[in-house]
Amino acid sequence: MFYFTIDILGTIAFAISGVLVAMDKKLDVFGVFIIAFVTAVGGGTLRDILIGNTPVGWLRESVYVFTIVGTVIFSIVFRNKLKYFRKSLFLFDTIGIGLYTVIGVQKGLAVGLAPVMCVALGTMTASFGGVLRDILCNEIPVIFRKEIYATACILGGFGYFLFNELPIVQEYAYVGAILLVISIRLLAVRFKIALPSVYRNQ
Amino acid sequence: MFYFTIDILGTIAFAISGVLVAMDKKLDVFGVFIIAFVTAVGGGTLRDILIGNTPVGWLRESVYVFTIVGTVIFSIVFRNKLKYFRKSLFLFDTIGIGLYTVIGVQKGLAVGLAPVMCVALGTMTASFGGVLRDILCNEIPVIFRKEIYATACILGGFGYFLFNELPIVQEYAYVGAILLVISIRLLAVRFKIALPSVYRNQ
Amino acid sequence: MFYFTIDILGTIAFAISGVLVAMDKKLDVFGVFIIAFVTAVGGGTLRDILIGNTPVGWLRESVYVFTIVGTVIFSIVFRNKLKYFRKSLFLFDTIGIGLYTVIGVQKGLAVGLAPVMCVALGTMTASFGGVLRDILCNEIPVIFRKEIYATACILGGFGYFLFNELPIVQEYAYVGAILLVISIRLLAVRFKIALPSVYRNQ
Repeated sequence: MFYFTIDILGTIAFAISGVLVAMDKKLDVFGVFIIAFVTAVGGGTLRDILIGNTPVGWLRESVYVFTIVGTVIFSIVFRNKLKYFRKSLFLFDTIGIGLYTVIGVQKGLAVGLAPVMCVALGTMTASFGGVLRDILCNEIPVIFRKEIYATACILGGFGYFLFNELPIVQEYAYVGAILLVISIRLLAVRFKIALPSVYRNQ
Repeated sequence: MFYFTIDILGTIAFAISGVLVAMDKKLDVFGVFIIAFVTAVGGGTLRDILIGNTPVGWLRESVYVFTIVGTVIFSIVFRNKLKYFRKSLFLFDTIGIGLYTVIGVQKGLAVGLAPVMCVALGTMTASFGGVLRDILCNEIPVIFRKEIYATACILGGFGYFLFNELPIVQEYAYVGAILLVISIRLLAVRFKIALPSVYRNQ
Repeated sequence: MFYFTIDILGTIAFAISGVLVAMDKKLDVFGVFIIAFVTAVGGGTLRDILIGNTPVGWLRESVYVFTIVGTVIFSIVFRNKLKYFRKSLFLFDTIGIGLYTVIGVQKGLAVGLAPVMCVALGTMTASFGGVLRDILCNEIPVIFRKEIYATACILGGFGYFLFNELPIVQEYAYVGAILLVISIRLLAVRFKIALPSVYRNQ
């Protein structure tokens, strides 16, 4: 129930981030809904497709569709008030990527993949909804250009395997990895830490 | 045989819409073919991937590939005459999305999905070939910005479930849903009805 | 072992082509890695998804991930020296697409697809990593606009089926198709042969 609440809050935060980008592009109502939807479920969908876990998750669990429909309606109605929720949204988003990373890692373990592949799946689950959102909106994905975001997921994913080596209950490794993702992201934003860009002399 | 004819006419209309966008971007012959192909089979391919229906449809039915190859050759040869077919193409496209919507709904039912998910799959089957076409051509998908198109598919998809509740032969529900999609699209174009754009004060 | 070496050299060449495009876009280190990764494994991943061969290849073979990580680190460190490797990279890339075409054809045969579909899968394996790279970097895919590239794969793929009709050992058909792809590409580059663009009077 606790994890389910986080999952839904994360879905809402992701959907709203999609709504905001779609509104900047002046899309119509259908376009806004699709971008919100892809942002919210895109990462998990890509993961499910890559491991062959079909029909993909959201097709089997109606709760996501209804959550996203509700979120989009709310966001459109209160579109000029969304800025007041910015801090909450950032928090939901950050807790969300922590949970999604660990969910992705566990889905990888369930099909017997190597740890490094599980970490890749976890990172993808948490961060590729935003990548698909940006592609659909004709932008270079923002997580390829700025901010520690996927990096937090990668480190949290490896943290999960580390914590599992410790003599602690598995539940703690689970929660520990989520907290690790959250901490790294919060610290990076607080101290404006970003990955370096790479370019070369032409 | 009747449905098969509609399917092929729809494939031709979709492929030509791909050819037209690709020519506007001054792509080479291979690029034109790929865009035509993705436009024609992209929606059904995405649907098949999401529900795990693999190898996806067009890999098992050579008729689509040959239809599209023929259409591309025809379109390139008569590229300066295509404007005279505009009305026919619009009609084939509109009948096509009606059929594809219902096909998508039935594929969803076949794997036991909830009605709302079947409608999503139907809409995707009918409209995401154009989305992929626009992404490959580096444009924001046109169906996110203007025209009633996906909306007609969504309403037609729900219509299918409604008609199935009536005491009529299933075949009639099938045809009724197709006619519903077609009617909505024709009315929307005739009366220039579009979904509202959503944006906000910055 | 011989084919494995070609496979790894091809992976390196593909990854570096991704690094170069990503650096031109001034992406950060994570972005550069993802673009390199998608360029190197994207074609095979798409093929595996379309035929339902999941978990997709790179999830089951860690060697590709480690090769790409190493290549990205090397390319970033020596980013101002990469131009000296240009000829080797072109060669690895060309040999790579030859091999990937034939691998793709054989994966198609393994699931019982028609020859024309196998050729499509082979071409996709060899050339769609670059398509995904360009989409992620917000460019119209370069192989839709210039150079004989996919065309070499298509002809090589059909060549494989032709050679298999001859009274020769199957291994020779395999190698012959690879050499055919390589020869066509080298000749096209040498004599600056490109497919014609298609556009029309507006």
